[in-house]
Amino acid sequence: MSDVPRVRVLLFDVFGTLVDWRTSVAERIADVLGPDVDGGALADAWRARYRPAMDAVRSGARPYAPLDVLHRENLDAVLAEMGLADRVGEGDRRRLNRAWHTLRAWPEVPAALVRLRRDHLVAPCSNGDVDMLVSIARTNGLIWDAVLGAGFVGEYKPSPAVYLRSAGALGCRPEEVMMVAAHSWDLEVASGLGMRTGFVARPDEHGPGRGEREPSLPVDVAAADLAELADALGAA
Amino acid sequence: MSDVPRVRVLLFDVFGTLVDWRTSVAERIADVLGPDVDGGALADAWRARYRPAMDAVRSGARPYAPLDVLHRENLDAVLAEMGLADRVGEGDRRRLNRAWHTLRAWPEVPAALVRLRRDHLVAPCSNGDVDMLVSIARTNGLIWDAVLGAGFVGEYKPSPAVYLRSAGALGCRPEEVMMVAAHSWDLEVASGLGMRTGFVARPDEHGPGRGEREPSLPVDVAAADLAELADALGAA
Repeated sequence: MSDVPRVRVLLFDVFGTLVDWRTSVAERIADVLGPDVDGGALADAWRARYRPAMDAVRSGARPYAPLDVLHRENLDAVLAEMGLADRVGEGDRRRLNRAWHTLRAWPEVPAALVRLRRDHLVAPCSNGDVDMLVSIARTNGLIWDAVLGAGFVGEYKPSPAVYLRSAGALGCRPEEVMMVAAHSWDLEVASGLGMRTGFVARPDEHGPGRGEREPSLPVDVAAADLAELADALGAA
Repeated sequence: MSDVPRVRVLLFDVFGTLVDWRTSVAERIADVLGPDVDGGALADAWRARYRPAMDAVRSGARPYAPLDVLHRENLDAVLAEMGLADRVGEGDRRRLNRAWHTLRAWPEVPAALVRLRRDHLVAPCSNGDVDMLVSIARTNGLIWDAVLGAGFVGEYKPSPAVYLRSAGALGCRPEEVMMVAAHSWDLEVASGLGMRTGFVARPDEHGPGRGEREPSLPVDVAAADLAELADALGAA
């Protein structure tokens, strides 16, 4: 672990990094569709359409649409693909889509974020919508100084504008910011823009053993979880 | 006081409504320029240029510029006007301009906001920049669910987009939102857009006896301060 320069602001990826989206979504699927649907498999198929949907926005093929809208389109497509279209009505589709608003944090996150917030400004820099991130924060008792990222900027990561305008909104140059994420691609973009990088391992993000254990690039801090990242940054 | 329908979100004006900008700025002026400058008068002259500067943005005469930039231009103009230009160097001008980042809340605000946040999402809908509002929140221990308003939308109140896009960011229709302000003009715009309105009296905002005691339009709640507004909304 290298010497960590003083950072004023911590920007956080949310899905996977702070919240266990797969377990939360799979449980909602089980609630709504019953035990004979494989919730984990449906959650994976749903999430697999996330990046391509955002790519269509990033490429300019379609204008910016909130993640809630993309999630719903992707859900409709996945249900059709899995032969479930006739079985799931409008109300249930809405309940399923709302699962992304109440994702549960990984266990150590709420306490670690309190520690990190003592000496840093903290904000999500996520592809989630503002209301989605606000709801996730309320679900888990997380306190943010501001809610930044795609909903603030009107573009999706990894567009550089999302990182730079989030830092700028807090009055910071990139080198005063650490991007915290469980995904090397996210940290690679941030690093390329001059930001510090904090990797948090989420080896089970996509199911047991299916997540990043180690970053694929040099980072300023690599931690097993957010509590260890707080230790590394000297949080009380 | 009329029956108040259930509102999910409270949007707050900040300058004057939640913070005593005049006293805070006057004290900074006294710190920086010494006792022979009338801090209150300079603060008033500085603030008097606030609305015209934003009007230039709203009219399209100039592109959106953050409030920090407008404040600084206005400070330079006021110092020149008052014959103080030669006496105040760059460092002191910066210190003066930063006064707007550490404005102190009116005394009852922090505790009342905690009460209001229990049952409502709360966010500033101010003409302040995001970093300015974040710093003011930290100065006073205020907790926001999100930081909305001009810095989020890239336009200044009273442009309707500032109110509507702030409500939209929290997933709300206007009628689910109450705009809280000490200024009738602010509530008039919000009301015209279908929002609920909460007036908080700040009779000393511009100095003793120079502030709005009563709203000049019908409002859903009129309160003597934010604690009374919390009472009226049934906050525990």
